[in-house]
Amino acid sequence: MSRQATTDFPVHELIARRWSPCGFSARPVLASDLCSLFEAARWAASSYNEQPWSYIVATRDNPGEFERMLSCLVETNRDWAAAAPVLVISVARLNFARNGRPNAAALHDLGLAAGNLSLEATARGLSVHQMIGISPETARELYEIPADAQAVTAMAIGYADDPENLSEALRKRDLAPRTRKPITSFVFSGRWDEVSPIVAR
Amino acid sequence: MSRQATTDFPVHELIARRWSPCGFSARPVLASDLCSLFEAARWAASSYNEQPWSYIVATRDNPGEFERMLSCLVETNRDWAAAAPVLVISVARLNFARNGRPNAAALHDLGLAAGNLSLEATARGLSVHQMIGISPETARELYEIPADAQAVTAMAIGYADDPENLSEALRKRDLAPRTRKPITSFVFSGRWDEVSPIVAR
Repeated sequence: MSRQATTDFPVHELIARRWSPCGFSARPVLASDLCSLFEAARWAASSYNEQPWSYIVATRDNPGEFERMLSCLVETNRDWAAAAPVLVISVARLNFARNGRPNAAALHDLGLAAGNLSLEATARGLSVHQMIGISPETARELYEIPADAQAVTAMAIGYADDPENLSEALRKRDLAPRTRKPITSFVFSGRWDEVSPIVAR
Repeated sequence: MSRQATTDFPVHELIARRWSPCGFSARPVLASDLCSLFEAARWAASSYNEQPWSYIVATRDNPGEFERMLSCLVETNRDWAAAAPVLVISVARLNFARNGRPNAAALHDLGLAAGNLSLEATARGLSVHQMIGISPETARELYEIPADAQAVTAMAIGYADDPENLSEALRKRDLAPRTRKPITSFVFSGRWDEVSPIVAR
């Protein structure tokens, strides 16, 4: 199923094609593909090249570990994410390794890495659905995440399912139109809320 | 100049090719390219589709505005960013528009948008160098950024310069080998710091 964004300006097809399905097919993800996804995350930019990202992975072929990770998700995410073949918890190190000081860019750079990972997935026909709806404290306890790090998001990774196979509720979510605010609402020059002449038409 | 990453696992060439130069040529960036960069940011994923990102743009063909934005950067960034044809300050809205509650994903999702923007730039032969080294308070005052939003990063955007044209210091930075931690150091399963069998070889 194509969920290509209808863009106002041309963008690379990987960017237009990326979307976040709720419906995943049972088709497993090859380890070699997962390695490339984490390799893509690896090459993201980060403040002082700190690379503050870590990932904890669980796959459905290990049901015990998969259930454990599912328990870190809020219930509304658990409902659909349980069908994905791969779950990942993304963790940010909050302090710089070099000096222990707070890294103000940690969450931002975790996002950069997630962006790379998602686009690599898109290039491989895979989909990633990121969730902020997790319990960081459950993840900390279960995985013994150290105090200077923080579980921030979970990701469901796999192949988007044909909407025909999905429950009514999931089908509706996955078929809803893709919408975004226009760039004139968030690109300013000179002053906040002053539309930039670069994007005004 | 190619600064292609030497990857341990194959990744899409846009991801391998993206890097953050300090040296920018004077060649201006077309408005149509900038529109596509912001359009790419627009289509990033975000928690509850909140799209918490905004951008303030200044170009060198408006020297007054360009100098104003430069003054938001810490001095070590100003030194090299002054040569870029385009500067952008990235702002995150910290609360949800729908209910005013704190958006725990705001900085993370700003990073996702920046990732899209950078890859779109790479696809167009442009480079983006992101900086956390700014004064958010200077930006708030100069641009009247509201209290529930926060300037987080600046970005220099343009065409990477030939290192031969750069000062000794910048040439060294732009020619230094590109390095990253291996994925075995940050991809775990079952427990923190336990290398995932998926990436162990």
